[in-house]
Amino acid sequence: MGMVRPANDPPAIPLELPPEALVLGIDVGGTTMKGEITDAAGAVHAAGVIETPKGLAAFDAMTALGDQLLGELSTEQRALVARAAVILPGIVDTARAIAVFSSNVGWRDVVIGDRFSARWGMPVLIDHDVTVGGWAEWRFGAGRGIDDVCVLMIGTGISGTLSVGGRLVRSAFGQAGEYGHIPVRYPDGLPCPCGNIGCVETLASGASVARAYSTRTGHETKGAAEVFALLDTDPDAEAVISDAVHALADGLIGVVHAVCPRLIVLGGGLAGAGAALTEPLHRAIAERLRLVPPPQVVVGEFGARAGLIGAARFARCGIVR
Amino acid sequence: MGMVRPANDPPAIPLELPPEALVLGIDVGGTTMKGEITDAAGAVHAAGVIETPKGLAAFDAMTALGDQLLGELSTEQRALVARAAVILPGIVDTARAIAVFSSNVGWRDVVIGDRFSARWGMPVLIDHDVTVGGWAEWRFGAGRGIDDVCVLMIGTGISGTLSVGGRLVRSAFGQAGEYGHIPVRYPDGLPCPCGNIGCVETLASGASVARAYSTRTGHETKGAAEVFALLDTDPDAEAVISDAVHALADGLIGVVHAVCPRLIVLGGGLAGAGAALTEPLHRAIAERLRLVPPPQVVVGEFGARAGLIGAARFARCGIVR
Repeated sequence: MGMVRPANDPPAIPLELPPEALVLGIDVGGTTMKGEITDAAGAVHAAGVIETPKGLAAFDAMTALGDQLLGELSTEQRALVARAAVILPGIVDTARAIAVFSSNVGWRDVVIGDRFSARWGMPVLIDHDVTVGGWAEWRFGAGRGIDDVCVLMIGTGISGTLSVGGRLVRSAFGQAGEYGHIPVRYPDGLPCPCGNIGCVETLASGASVARAYSTRTGHETKGAAEVFALLDTDPDAEAVISDAVHALADGLIGVVHAVCPRLIVLGGGLAGAGAALTEPLHRAIAERLRLVPPPQVVVGEFGARAGLIGAARFARCGIVR
Repeated sequence: MGMVRPANDPPAIPLELPPEALVLGIDVGGTTMKGEITDAAGAVHAAGVIETPKGLAAFDAMTALGDQLLGELSTEQRALVARAAVILPGIVDTARAIAVFSSNVGWRDVVIGDRFSARWGMPVLIDHDVTVGGWAEWRFGAGRGIDDVCVLMIGTGISGTLSVGGRLVRSAFGQAGEYGHIPVRYPDGLPCPCGNIGCVETLASGASVARAYSTRTGHETKGAAEVFALLDTDPDAEAVISDAVHALADGLIGVVHAVCPRLIVLGGGLAGAGAALTEPLHRAIAERLRLVPPPQVVVGEFGARAGLIGAARFARCGIVR
């Protein structure tokens, strides 16, 4: 995994597109992939959602989704689509445009090459979905104007971004922002699918919250939202969410001391819980701090659209930074 | 503690000094303060060490030490001393040049103003001792040429720096790098003088290693170095050092996931243990990682001189970044 990233080097294509240009953004998730063609104001000119096939078929589906959306445009509009961005889950080697690994979808070391750009006749940028979505929340959403911000996307898994001194943290050594795999209950916690023990995700992802509640009560739940809805009336729900909040706080407390972010933004499905999540998390972080001021904790502005909005912004400005 | 720092703004004085200039650097520690006047090649033209008086008297001692060193120069040399840097322990508000807090020396909210600059007739820069020493190890020492580096100074206390994308992390919100106060044994650990529970420092500072060994065995020790010397022959020493190493690994694992540094540099007194510390720490970090590559762990190049070397470099180039 010693992949090389162009930490701060702009790509060898022009940056900011002219205002009349349209862009195609595709956000590939483990279950569905979403695509949109948008203009500079963010207005949507074509949109579509399809299921994400498992394995390499996912890449053909990305091509098909792009084809479909581009095909919906008039000839005049089609000529204005100047660049695309495809954002991928798992681990992505941006510098070499390789989809390194996705456990959810099931691929390894897929070279993107000119697969999309040759087909669509335009430059196509590749990056990591959460990196781009977190960047969007920081740069254009709940964190805009603030230099030091941590964004956490909490859904099936947990990962995010970090911005310091007004720049997004990228690493040349590995993929930054894997907050979900910080082992906070090591070595005595639950096994994580990553192979480690006691990762933040084993207690605080949407799936883990639902599973912990079911295990504790014997009642099936449809998901974490249902557990949050029971928070005020059900001590088991309260205990499960408390475990999740403390795992998140333990996971974040290292980076809070290392860089002193002013703000933590929560995105992804679990952020739908709103103040029921942000307020106890702020308290749990604050109670772990003496020397360092506690960051504010807020919900992201873009919800499930952070990836799509980020992909469009990325395609438009040509760089994530 | 919501102090304001000039995250990336250069100070309003010229940057890099001409090569013939000399600089005065003073590194104020909890026990002693050290000063040096050096040239561009790092050659020392005057040097001195004095005890650090407690409380506000420490500031008069800084003035006296500077006076003494400047007084040792010839008139010609004296005229070449173009700038000074005084680096202070605790929490320092660099933007407003305020020594905010030092529990070791015992001061709070001391405005530096023109206290030194008026006396010595030159610009005098102020910053945090560990920030400047860690910056020196990153920029000019064991971490030079590497963009993403975490430096940890392990002595009586533990703190350090973080560099990402080739820039030192400074926060406008609080002091970055307080790794020693990450609560890794919370809420069941030992009380820390900071008021928190289970901080990294309660297990991994030099003082804590010595204390833990004494408590465990009933034998007084002179310090952590003595415990490290017993490592191969004494199971109690091994257990105490293992606790320290695992506390350090638990403290670092959050920032390792957040930013993926390529290198961790250990400075301060405990780094004198060399491979007896770096190798088990590397293993303890690696065993906690699955998705992220383990950073290399090395000892700093400047040892106890990191602060002085940093102060001289800071005075010479006018900015820590």
